[in-house]
Amino acid sequence: MELLNTVTVQEAKNKIKEEFNEISLKTEKINILDAVGRHVSNSIVASIDVPGFNRSTVDGYAVISKDTFGASESIPSFLKYKGNIEMGAKAEVVLKPGECYYVPTGGMLPIGTDGVVMIEYTETLGNEICIQKPTAPGQNILKKDEDLKNGEVIFKKGHKLRPQDIGMLAGIGIGNIDVYEKVKVSIVSTGDELVSPTEELKPGKIKDMNTYSLSAASVEDGCIVVERAIVKDDRDLLKAKIEECANNSHVVLVSGGSSMGNKDYTKDVINDIGYPGVFIHGISIKPGKPTIIGRINNTAVFGLPGQPVSALVIYKVFVSFLIKEIYYNEKSLNQYVEGEISSNIPSAPGREHYVMVNIKEEKGKTIIEPVYGKSGMLSMMAKARGSVRIDTNAEGLVKGDVVKVSIL
Amino acid sequence: MELLNTVTVQEAKNKIKEEFNEISLKTEKINILDAVGRHVSNSIVASIDVPGFNRSTVDGYAVISKDTFGASESIPSFLKYKGNIEMGAKAEVVLKPGECYYVPTGGMLPIGTDGVVMIEYTETLGNEICIQKPTAPGQNILKKDEDLKNGEVIFKKGHKLRPQDIGMLAGIGIGNIDVYEKVKVSIVSTGDELVSPTEELKPGKIKDMNTYSLSAASVEDGCIVVERAIVKDDRDLLKAKIEECANNSHVVLVSGGSSMGNKDYTKDVINDIGYPGVFIHGISIKPGKPTIIGRINNTAVFGLPGQPVSALVIYKVFVSFLIKEIYYNEKSLNQYVEGEISSNIPSAPGREHYVMVNIKEEKGKTIIEPVYGKSGMLSMMAKARGSVRIDTNAEGLVKGDVVKVSIL
Repeated sequence: MELLNTVTVQEAKNKIKEEFNEISLKTEKINILDAVGRHVSNSIVASIDVPGFNRSTVDGYAVISKDTFGASESIPSFLKYKGNIEMGAKAEVVLKPGECYYVPTGGMLPIGTDGVVMIEYTETLGNEICIQKPTAPGQNILKKDEDLKNGEVIFKKGHKLRPQDIGMLAGIGIGNIDVYEKVKVSIVSTGDELVSPTEELKPGKIKDMNTYSLSAASVEDGCIVVERAIVKDDRDLLKAKIEECANNSHVVLVSGGSSMGNKDYTKDVINDIGYPGVFIHGISIKPGKPTIIGRINNTAVFGLPGQPVSALVIYKVFVSFLIKEIYYNEKSLNQYVEGEISSNIPSAPGREHYVMVNIKEEKGKTIIEPVYGKSGMLSMMAKARGSVRIDTNAEGLVKGDVVKVSIL
Repeated sequence: MELLNTVTVQEAKNKIKEEFNEISLKTEKINILDAVGRHVSNSIVASIDVPGFNRSTVDGYAVISKDTFGASESIPSFLKYKGNIEMGAKAEVVLKPGECYYVPTGGMLPIGTDGVVMIEYTETLGNEICIQKPTAPGQNILKKDEDLKNGEVIFKKGHKLRPQDIGMLAGIGIGNIDVYEKVKVSIVSTGDELVSPTEELKPGKIKDMNTYSLSAASVEDGCIVVERAIVKDDRDLLKAKIEECANNSHVVLVSGGSSMGNKDYTKDVINDIGYPGVFIHGISIKPGKPTIIGRINNTAVFGLPGQPVSALVIYKVFVSFLIKEIYYNEKSLNQYVEGEISSNIPSAPGREHYVMVNIKEEKGKTIIEPVYGKSGMLSMMAKARGSVRIDTNAEGLVKGDVVKVSIL
């Protein structure tokens, strides 16, 4: 029997990076309205000044600030009202001492304006405006190019566009943008026992789950699933299918067939098809130890465990890493929920351990509760709100430890 | 001048809940492959047992556990090898004392099996299997219906489907599922100064940003944007457009026109169109105080501030709340990143304050840095990685305080 030559989680990530770092995705130009969640394929540079003119940040009166110094409700300053600057209109007038113009929020300021008094602190008295509060130089004004300068880098390559970024692109006049193409994923589930969800379930058979969960996970990661297939435990069939998928995809996910039992052809098949073949078989991680990672030309092929929980853990730790950090150049930020673990969780040092957990509020405290279940139980994953990572060097968690939960 | 009659953030949420709690979305039946991120419109109940038979969770030998007690590498137990159970095949054989069958992971167990020995702890010697480690009753076995029982509730109404849930649905034979229709959103940006992003920018004009950022935010929240329009500052035009949108949408977002200056018709127009009209004008929140919230028949109409940062903060706090928690019945869980704030941030008690921040790692510590900028600066939002909420009753933050950042 072949023994697994396991590597650590970090070593596995380093190897994935080495193998796929040089592979670049194609790019495509899309409308910014379709671009939320997509990754920019080039640095984005401002091509105009924002704002393009000095403008007011409030509804109020454009003034020369000196004219308002010392103004109060009891001793207001009186300024001559010279008119309204219309929203969206060019303000080419020159403001002189003792004068003021009404300007709406976002409106252009008359030449010479160095402050704006909010309308709330003014009163109209015939042709004069009574100013009840002073304004300082620069107050309530957004100066030309103060927000963004022509030529300034706004987003670096790989930045994942958020709603506010889409607004910003609109604001600088970018209506279409270059983004990376979507990573193409093929999903192959292997096993004589698998039937599709709506097929009748005969004894000894189980419904295919991994095709569905891995497909949804890929879509969530911004990929497009180009092929889904169930393949019987037959070496030639599997080889033909993986070869076909490798030709059409950036990533091929094969689930089942990666443990040490009979009929596990995934590794041999990957090595058969082409260069450089399998470069990882076995990772010090629980669950998911017998994972296979290989490369066929420019395509990554993962041999994931057949058990749904293990397959998804490996997907999140390694496949997501490849897709987001290597292919899309995304700098991701790990959000979490923090709380106290509700019981001891033993863990053997030497492997990274992912524990499925629930999150509860009890007496104002956030309590993290492990979800128990046997390997292969799907309800475990569905019942869990998140996972806690126990580091390779840790010996487990002690009840009351504060832990960070990654939401699943 | 009309004064705002402000309510607190919590009061505003309560009122939104009161007004829209009774409104139910239509449902639609979709394929589970398209269902990730959608919300189930009914409780989902298992209609089969999972697994449907006792099965092995490892590759190994099905045994009667008693036969292995005391087995070790030096003093192994020898069991008679009776054959292989094929994956996906029905195992109708009866296991007798002293015998064993090879069973792959997920395979059906012979009748009478009460334990499985992993293949790693065995050796084949002719027609006998040498067992080098004992197994306990129940070990490495997943019993019929241990994962899920026929009739058990799996997902409650409103549950947002994750990849693992899609796998689970497949596993219990559900290929199509009832979910809520997507919330229909219309976006109306008002202002004579607005031009579309690709139009030439004349002095006094600014490019429309809110249509784009709010559109992307709605899509991110699982909505469909049915209408986008820029409307000039003209009461009749605005009324006609809002009326048309209210007829076609669950939510209408009007941006601009909610402050106290000239030409702010949003409130009057909502009240003109129909029952019950505006129920909130002014919220104790910074930024975004002059927000308007109203209802026209069953449609929610929000008058958002024109400034992009303010508009998005109000969107996140109130519009997202309505869409996710009220319409979709989602129970959301707030993830965050925790760190130390890098400087004092004063805040006036009596209003909820949202501060845009950056996140940095310094000497192994997570440092939260406020992003300074003037109201209306779009770069502020694009540069910020998240926001920190300062509670209504708090007087601000002191340098070194540990704060939770919501990622934007």
